Amino acid sequence: MTGEELRSTTVHDWKSKHVLVTGGASFIGSHLVDALVGRGARVRVVDNLSSGRRENIADHIASGAVEFREADLLRSDVVDAATAGTDVVFHIAADHGGRGYIDLHQVACSTNLVLDGMVFRSAERAGAEKVVFASSGCVYPEHLQNDPGELLYLTEGLVAPPYAADNLYGWAKLMGELTLRAYCAEGRLAAASVRYFTAYGPRCPESHAVMAMIARAMTGQDPFEIWGTGEQVRNWTHVQDIVEGTIRAAEEIHDGTAVNIGTMERTSVVECAREVLAYMGREARFVFDPSKPTGPYNRVSDLTLCRELLGWEPEIDFKTGLRSTIDWYLEAHDESEVRRTLEFALTERRHA
Amino acid sequence: MTGEELRSTTVHDWKSKHVLVTGGASFIGSHLVDALVGRGARVRVVDNLSSGRRENIADHIASGAVEFREADLLRSDVVDAATAGTDVVFHIAADHGGRGYIDLHQVACSTNLVLDGMVFRSAERAGAEKVVFASSGCVYPEHLQNDPGELLYLTEGLVAPPYAADNLYGWAKLMGELTLRAYCAEGRLAAASVRYFTAYGPRCPESHAVMAMIARAMTGQDPFEIWGTGEQVRNWTHVQDIVEGTIRAAEEIHDGTAVNIGTMERTSVVECAREVLAYMGREARFVFDPSKPTGPYNRVSDLTLCRELLGWEPEIDFKTGLRSTIDWYLEAHDESEVRRTLEFALTERRHA
Repeated sequence: MTGEELRSTTVHDWKSKHVLVTGGASFIGSHLVDALVGRGARVRVVDNLSSGRRENIADHIASGAVEFREADLLRSDVVDAATAGTDVVFHIAADHGGRGYIDLHQVACSTNLVLDGMVFRSAERAGAEKVVFASSGCVYPEHLQNDPGELLYLTEGLVAPPYAADNLYGWAKLMGELTLRAYCAEGRLAAASVRYFTAYGPRCPESHAVMAMIARAMTGQDPFEIWGTGEQVRNWTHVQDIVEGTIRAAEEIHDGTAVNIGTMERTSVVECAREVLAYMGREARFVFDPSKPTGPYNRVSDLTLCRELLGWEPEIDFKTGLRSTIDWYLEAHDESEVRRTLEFALTERRHA
Repeated sequence: MTGEELRSTTVHDWKSKHVLVTGGASFIGSHLVDALVGRGARVRVVDNLSSGRRENIADHIASGAVEFREADLLRSDVVDAATAGTDVVFHIAADHGGRGYIDLHQVACSTNLVLDGMVFRSAERAGAEKVVFASSGCVYPEHLQNDPGELLYLTEGLVAPPYAADNLYGWAKLMGELTLRAYCAEGRLAAASVRYFTAYGPRCPESHAVMAMIARAMTGQDPFEIWGTGEQVRNWTHVQDIVEGTIRAAEEIHDGTAVNIGTMERTSVVECAREVLAYMGREARFVFDPSKPTGPYNRVSDLTLCRELLGWEPEIDFKTGLRSTIDWYLEAHDESEVRRTLEFALTERRHA
């Protein structure tokens, strides 16, 4: 494709589009499916249900809006069948979890190097117009993110050689971005990469810190365990914003540019814990465990490029999003079941 | 596997071993097959013949020493069948060529991210003891290698975060190394990575500079074209040394350590060209084309770690190795055929 042709692949009318969502039964993937179905797209989901759940998209499957295949995209026959006939590929699938998972499962996360390349290659061969790639704040240089007191906002250009990604999880995301840029530069695909920052919301599993806190509070944990010093700063970003940014990137970015999707709200882990306990009407003493995985101490996105390219920025403030997520969690979970499975869920991915 | 078990997987008696050589019909791969067959190993070769040639290992196939499969290792069924029943996997296959190739084919080189991860994963699942990975000098930080006047020898520890590999080819090699180290750290495989430096020798294709020079001289090119300023320094390393180092690494390294396999001889491109012309009895005026791909201007390996871990270092001096390579090239090639295919061969991989 020429540059002009790439530009002409702008997607705005989703009604005519055949869309593949890899990992579409997962936390973020299933919300993306909700939004795409809402826009009238014809959606295929391929998911091995390693962290996804069929019930996350059961209504869409029942209504016929979504074609669902439970299958392993690390098989080349599966990925080729998945991309066949699709116009746009949202590649959300990944071997992934929260900090407790990605720090402790490097080989598992390295399989994303395989998965991503297979999906891109297959998408091109299937004649897809565009690939949208779920990248991550984990591509940013770790050494910049050590001081929680620094008023740091990560701008996209900070990801430049020499690179210093966060774990093999982050390296795989970076390689995915670089590979997609090469596909664009060679005129072989249109693409966008979206760097997600610390997503949370309904359907989010407990290996992510904010969900772990909600689960701990639900079980009445006291003393209340916090990994690290609690000073770690994050810009927790609601999954609805993550999904909206992803679709806008699909509409507006063609040349493989990577854009941050995250808020600029700075919240420390301990502030988050206080908010969770307060809203849930619990009191507890905090105990800090610095031996546990924490990730970087200061990770918040800049939004200049997001505003410029997407004409939009995340809209859900953390307090509002957190409260509705807590409401969902309490409604969706049984306390004794949470108590039984929580330790496993903090660092693992498959269902207990 | 525990650390002790990993250590016990030392291979010294190749006679009892079932060995897979991916890319075993290629330049380096086929020499490795020669050496392994010579040591009595039972060798399987899987190669898609994208740059390899069946005739490189035809004698071994005819004698029954090598089981050959022409197949694409990017297919998961192929890779699983390839690793089945093997004790040691030498993963030499790559989408690769000389400088003219890797600078101009980034998407193609990115498929190594897929290939490498598939081979490692499949090797573990097949119960292989060890994986030996053909890495590259392309993992070293580019910015260190700019000054041809500096007496620089690249020590393995220079590859450390932040990383700055050379092209997606180099990034894929680096990711392969990191992935294998993770397999070792998690006790799932024993492994060694060997960083090859500018290999040359019989069967080497013309996208590699030294072979391009021999081909140019054979056709009597005058003026004689040199890419870049000609000041680029390399440690051309004969394929027999590359192969000997690779087998020794298989025998001695278990924990995924990466070791340089390259000489410490510093030779500039223009010195190499002079030597080629002199030995071939040709005279020509040099013309330099700085617009062409050159790679870094100063790439020579250190050998401290190689000596320490392998008790050995490359033995073939460049002048000796070059002359025997020229003898082979003249014997194996027809001048009019070289003239017809040379331009294509300088930057491409598939046979013209």
